[in-house]
Amino acid sequence: MGGSVIWHVATSLDGYIAAPDGDVGWVFGHDFPGREAETTPGRIGAIIAGRVWHDECAARDWDVVVPYHGRWSGPIFVLTHRPPDASPLPVTFLTADINLAIRTARDAACGKDVGLFGADIPRQALEAGLLDEIIVHIVPILLGGGRRLCARDGPPIRLVNTQDKDHAAATLALRPEGKR
Amino acid sequence: MGGSVIWHVATSLDGYIAAPDGDVGWVFGHDFPGREAETTPGRIGAIIAGRVWHDECAARDWDVVVPYHGRWSGPIFVLTHRPPDASPLPVTFLTADINLAIRTARDAACGKDVGLFGADIPRQALEAGLLDEIIVHIVPILLGGGRRLCARDGPPIRLVNTQDKDHAAATLALRPEGKR
Repeated sequence: MGGSVIWHVATSLDGYIAAPDGDVGWVFGHDFPGREAETTPGRIGAIIAGRVWHDECAARDWDVVVPYHGRWSGPIFVLTHRPPDASPLPVTFLTADINLAIRTARDAACGKDVGLFGADIPRQALEAGLLDEIIVHIVPILLGGGRRLCARDGPPIRLVNTQDKDHAAATLALRPEGKR
Repeated sequence: MGGSVIWHVATSLDGYIAAPDGDVGWVFGHDFPGREAETTPGRIGAIIAGRVWHDECAARDWDVVVPYHGRWSGPIFVLTHRPPDASPLPVTFLTADINLAIRTARDAACGKDVGLFGADIPRQALEAGLLDEIIVHIVPILLGGGRRLCARDGPPIRLVNTQDKDHAAATLALRPEGKR
């Protein structure tokens, strides 16, 4: 065990990880079902995030935006072509390509898995064949636009349920809030 | 019971109902969990679809594209501003607005619910406050682009689980097909 690369992400029902104005507040206040919601933080030994994540966190109180509400500790790498001169966050900047970044994070993960945040870096890992698993929480909201879960050209990427490969899909029965 | 307006739809994980080339073949071959997959056809007394659905079905064999694999029968309305001169399909064209179209379908549904297919017409119903429920099957595939589940401007629309309002979200644990 350990050494896997996990994309841990929450998406709107219509496939966005942030609203058009960048807001991600809609992610909070939901009780995510599945044992993965509980167990994933414990699997992760190091995190790779991107510049968008960094800048959003830097503009807020670290106690609020800290990964997994502070119930997690470990090295956080920010992979970017344009590292800032200084950062208020306890992170390490990397300017490597995705292969080297993942190798660096894996070395730092002490035998645990590497967690990827955001959308752009996980997409790069996916396209490079380096992504082992996606733990995705689907939030019952229609954002209408924003930062896409997976913006890419190229053929569709089929996914398989890691628990039950014959039942990979999910069904949700929803109603608009306020509608009786 | 009866008289509700239900959007019954399958979406890719990244929020598309058709691939960039219009393909919807990726929807098939999945076992959709949840009792809604079984019970929804029986609730529906009439269907409203749009011109995109019509034209895609008209280009194929009706036995293949018939709603619910033929396990359903009832009136099918195609709501469009530009009805074709003729159609090979057993459908009725409507050029009404969304309010009148839903009233027409509800009258034809013999006390059952009205089912909406596609993306554009359900979005109109949602924005007009006429949509009561969304039964959505989330297919484990990343299409990267295509026809969006819900293309709209305006504030986010929050949704509530009809079965369990405290656990409206879903979690999927996935891996890329072919990856061990």
